[in-house]
Amino acid sequence: MTTLFSITHFLLAQDATATTKNLEDAVSAIKGDMSMLWMLLAGILVFFMQAGFTLVESGMTRSKNAVNIAMKNLLDICVGSISFWFIGYSLMYGDSENGWFFWSGLMQGEGADLFFQTMFAATAATIVSGAIAGRTKYTTYAIFSIVMTAVIYPIAGGWEWNGGWLNSESMPAEFIDFAGSSIVHSVGGWAALVAAFMVGPRIGKFVDGKVIPIPGHNQVLATLGVFILWLGWFGFNGGSQLAWGGDDSSAASTVVLITNLAAAAGGLGALITTWIWYGKPNLAQTLNGALAGLVSITAGCGNMTAGGALLAGLIGGVIVVFSIEFIEKKLKIDDAIGAASVHGVAGAWGTLVIGLWGVDGDTGIGLFNGGGFAQLGAQAIGVLAYAVWAIVLSIIVFGILKYTFGLRVTEEEEIQGLDISEHGSIAYPGKRQREYDE
Amino acid sequence: MTTLFSITHFLLAQDATATTKNLEDAVSAIKGDMSMLWMLLAGILVFFMQAGFTLVESGMTRSKNAVNIAMKNLLDICVGSISFWFIGYSLMYGDSENGWFFWSGLMQGEGADLFFQTMFAATAATIVSGAIAGRTKYTTYAIFSIVMTAVIYPIAGGWEWNGGWLNSESMPAEFIDFAGSSIVHSVGGWAALVAAFMVGPRIGKFVDGKVIPIPGHNQVLATLGVFILWLGWFGFNGGSQLAWGGDDSSAASTVVLITNLAAAAGGLGALITTWIWYGKPNLAQTLNGALAGLVSITAGCGNMTAGGALLAGLIGGVIVVFSIEFIEKKLKIDDAIGAASVHGVAGAWGTLVIGLWGVDGDTGIGLFNGGGFAQLGAQAIGVLAYAVWAIVLSIIVFGILKYTFGLRVTEEEEIQGLDISEHGSIAYPGKRQREYDE
Amino acid sequence: MTTLFSITHFLLAQDATATTKNLEDAVSAIKGDMSMLWMLLAGILVFFMQAGFTLVESGMTRSKNAVNIAMKNLLDICVGSISFWFIGYSLMYGDSENGWFFWSGLMQGEGADLFFQTMFAATAATIVSGAIAGRTKYTTYAIFSIVMTAVIYPIAGGWEWNGGWLNSESMPAEFIDFAGSSIVHSVGGWAALVAAFMVGPRIGKFVDGKVIPIPGHNQVLATLGVFILWLGWFGFNGGSQLAWGGDDSSAASTVVLITNLAAAAGGLGALITTWIWYGKPNLAQTLNGALAGLVSITAGCGNMTAGGALLAGLIGGVIVVFSIEFIEKKLKIDDAIGAASVHGVAGAWGTLVIGLWGVDGDTGIGLFNGGGFAQLGAQAIGVLAYAVWAIVLSIIVFGILKYTFGLRVTEEEEIQGLDISEHGSIAYPGKRQREYDE
Repeated sequence: MTTLFSITHFLLAQDATATTKNLEDAVSAIKGDMSMLWMLLAGILVFFMQAGFTLVESGMTRSKNAVNIAMKNLLDICVGSISFWFIGYSLMYGDSENGWFFWSGLMQGEGADLFFQTMFAATAATIVSGAIAGRTKYTTYAIFSIVMTAVIYPIAGGWEWNGGWLNSESMPAEFIDFAGSSIVHSVGGWAALVAAFMVGPRIGKFVDGKVIPIPGHNQVLATLGVFILWLGWFGFNGGSQLAWGGDDSSAASTVVLITNLAAAAGGLGALITTWIWYGKPNLAQTLNGALAGLVSITAGCGNMTAGGALLAGLIGGVIVVFSIEFIEKKLKIDDAIGAASVHGVAGAWGTLVIGLWGVDGDTGIGLFNGGGFAQLGAQAIGVLAYAVWAIVLSIIVFGILKYTFGLRVTEEEEIQGLDISEHGSIAYPGKRQREYDE
Repeated sequence: MTTLFSITHFLLAQDATATTKNLEDAVSAIKGDMSMLWMLLAGILVFFMQAGFTLVESGMTRSKNAVNIAMKNLLDICVGSISFWFIGYSLMYGDSENGWFFWSGLMQGEGADLFFQTMFAATAATIVSGAIAGRTKYTTYAIFSIVMTAVIYPIAGGWEWNGGWLNSESMPAEFIDFAGSSIVHSVGGWAALVAAFMVGPRIGKFVDGKVIPIPGHNQVLATLGVFILWLGWFGFNGGSQLAWGGDDSSAASTVVLITNLAAAAGGLGALITTWIWYGKPNLAQTLNGALAGLVSITAGCGNMTAGGALLAGLIGGVIVVFSIEFIEKKLKIDDAIGAASVHGVAGAWGTLVIGLWGVDGDTGIGLFNGGGFAQLGAQAIGVLAYAVWAIVLSIIVFGILKYTFGLRVTEEEEIQGLDISEHGSIAYPGKRQREYDE
Repeated sequence: MTTLFSITHFLLAQDATATTKNLEDAVSAIKGDMSMLWMLLAGILVFFMQAGFTLVESGMTRSKNAVNIAMKNLLDICVGSISFWFIGYSLMYGDSENGWFFWSGLMQGEGADLFFQTMFAATAATIVSGAIAGRTKYTTYAIFSIVMTAVIYPIAGGWEWNGGWLNSESMPAEFIDFAGSSIVHSVGGWAALVAAFMVGPRIGKFVDGKVIPIPGHNQVLATLGVFILWLGWFGFNGGSQLAWGGDDSSAASTVVLITNLAAAAGGLGALITTWIWYGKPNLAQTLNGALAGLVSITAGCGNMTAGGALLAGLIGGVIVVFSIEFIEKKLKIDDAIGAASVHGVAGAWGTLVIGLWGVDGDTGIGLFNGGGFAQLGAQAIGVLAYAVWAIVLSIIVFGILKYTFGLRVTEEEEIQGLDISEHGSIAYPGKRQREYDE
């Protein structure tokens, strides 16, 4: 009887072991399910940033170009979704590795990941559109947008996020750019600077050596745009954890928390700076400050304490005010909405600051304390590499476009507004529209 | 001793088995929890589409009717939430089955599901409001909105989504409408067409046989509206998976991915079409194209490859441009924002295309290759059934309204704007408001 | 052999038990992961409410103050995020308990929870900004915003949500305020009323004893703002479940469902009230009604049937119309957007109604049936306590500000608009901006 008993137990125990294995698999699959849910939702939030960019860019420029701005942003998401799916995703995340670019043919990928990555590519492209508002040919922008989402951004991304050369052992330390201060924002920002320089300033921007302000037409919409960008950034940074469950849950939550702190500090930094410097707290700069705060924490949001994030954002918000003035008044480049400062300069700052007071994500030990200038060196190499890449490629592409399609509309078309010349309609049809814009 | 030992093991093993059972239940419950979370979030995204519709409809029409548009959209969600909860949900998802309509009394339902379904009903209603902008009595619209959310849409929905006659074995193949190209959008679109026809054109739309354009008043808000709708559509289509976890996670993610591709292709299709046909890429049509792309993939988003979705959306975006022209210029029906084309025509196209290059969701085998014209036949029956249902019911309801409350405001009221005559206020109070609108 | 067999089984069973324990931990950890995901997403939705407040407040006031409104709302989120993290969170959720306030030094907290709670603090502050639009000094508002997010709101919150005196056994029944009808909205609303009274009415509001309407400048944006608030409220109320998984999943889903029903009923209540009372359904009041419906269910969304929620919202929507008239015409207080009525009065109503037809969340038994007036008494104590707290603290803070920085801008500045005097720019730059606002 004992033996029979024993055999029964044996079978029961064996069953239990098999079921346990199934359960372990099921529990582990659930982590995958939760990760996919978080990334999909994060991607949806990042998608919405396109609306934010549209509002910021059109709100901060003249109403006679608002249709053109909308058409450029629509183009970014329409063309970017297709070209990144068709070419960019493979160039960025493909298998065939040489450290500089990748390729695997047309990758169907996993839905949530491809969707999330697509939205990043569209973001990189859309940064450029505001800087060159009011005088650039639509055809020219369209071609640049395709090249950006299909080639420039994906190759840049692979260097770091697909284990390319910036992620290799030859670096002084592992280059850190969690969600893309450099990879997405600086690449977009430097391209915007080159584009604004090569297209040239809007008529009436620089007269007899003086800088003439060309105010936007709707600061309420610009504010709404910044709130939408801020919202989308929670997905942009938080989703870059690429997982949910266990330590990833609290890590991604902390990313969102400190992203908010950096944005708040950036807005406050610019608000106070303008209060002191202009005498009054300025809305447009406060909006730029909040965005600069967000860009400043995008690289380091996995490697910062809350206090460190706050400080990084605060300084980003201060820098952006002076950077916009510098590019406009000293470099005499007409970046219509300050994109190069918000995304390029703050992106570089956000990447470098990790080498100053970033901490190891696992141990919490300061990277500078732990490794001295090694991390700062690695960050500087990355900042430089992305700047060179974006600037050189942009010069080539806009250079070719200059001698083929041409970069600018005619003087008459520019004065009349691109909405009519490029799209045959106006943003606010009605008797007073034209006067509204004078 | 051995026996004592054995009994101990037995109890341990028994315990383990019981615990294992509990764990299996727990794991399976987690899938339910994740599904509920996804559906709730998807429903929240679909809710936000109401804001998108408000902006698209008011942006694309005159400012003297913007208050009226806002009031109609608020009415849709206010009345729709209550009437669908009170009547529609039971008519659509009730137990008592005859294949044509259902009923179970007041169903409390499960929170996330009822919430998600409510938002669909409100969407179906709101499609109509834009088409008849600028001349329809508010009372009349209010009554139609109640009937739509309480009766017309729920009965239509039950035919397919509650195992009604369109889901029965007498069909040549299983009719497929994953998220409602026909059930939601076509029903709304055809009702919009009937409504626009019966209410008649706005004063000044057709003069001496010529079609006079009546441009919208704010294309920036219309653009924002389309971005919000595009955002909400990720919940609309993705949430229609009705589950998360295991295969459902990747299936729903893929739905979102290809929804985005179809929208992008639709926008691009319309952009290119107008560039060729009008000579310039047109904003209003590009916006309609993106929406048409979304409608075109709503039925098939569970049965399309990424390439197939792209092609379906692209063609949807081209069709909508010609359809809007056709309805306006040939049928001489004044659909103020093109709702019948965007939702009705593209909805029919999106339903039919499944029979052309749709694939089996499980096997990936082409439905046409596998079953020939059977699937296309089933899709055509569904398209036709929903068209007949929506058109007949709308004729009856608007017919009754015509001879009771009346459909139109007076000529004076229409010229003055519905905001003043129907609501006693204007959208943009200020000295220049009236001129702004002339 | 039997013994050997037995020992093998024993080890197998022991292993199984250990694995089972791990699995149980894993399953329980998943519930934590899902809860964190839901709270993080809910917090993100609540963040977006800041954009909604900005649009409602600027849309419902003159365009010459729109920049100022945007700057106040940006300040709320920028300052609030930092001060609540630095001081408020600890004052609200700290350990050292005396029932009235708490403290634990700087709490890093758990990311998702701190983030979620921060957004609540920012909401309480932002309610005040609309009421005192058009005449209040920016410095003054800035200081109040800091005090609100660092001290007034956190202490009020701890009374109930950190087991303070309102949650103690000395109460006639457990005070219920699920998501903050009183704690967040009434505190903000009563502070708004005090602020509007102390700052005084806008020039031209009360002339020779008559009330002169000062209409907003953009009702379309106000409508969009309400849709955004409605959207964010799903996170505000649903997230206050503070958990996801098992019963929490369906509980939170039901919270979202009935939140929507109450909002819908509130909008409808105001719509019908104005239709009857003014003769025409009024947009501004319908918007206020929807918000009042949301506030009315914020306390009771865990203790209401769907029907009860609908009724609570409906009455909230009716009350708000009369309350706005009463405060304006009888009290002669110029609350520029009706914040005291929407948040204060409807907040009190939403807290009290639980004592009338609230139900026990677990058993579903009516609280009045079960305990008579005990619950209503507890609710009344809470309503009164929060009113006294908010009013007294606001009088003190604004009193000090009055005799230090001063509350109002000069008459010239007010007439010119705060955008120029306080911020040096205008919302809609262009030739017609000034006329647009006259």
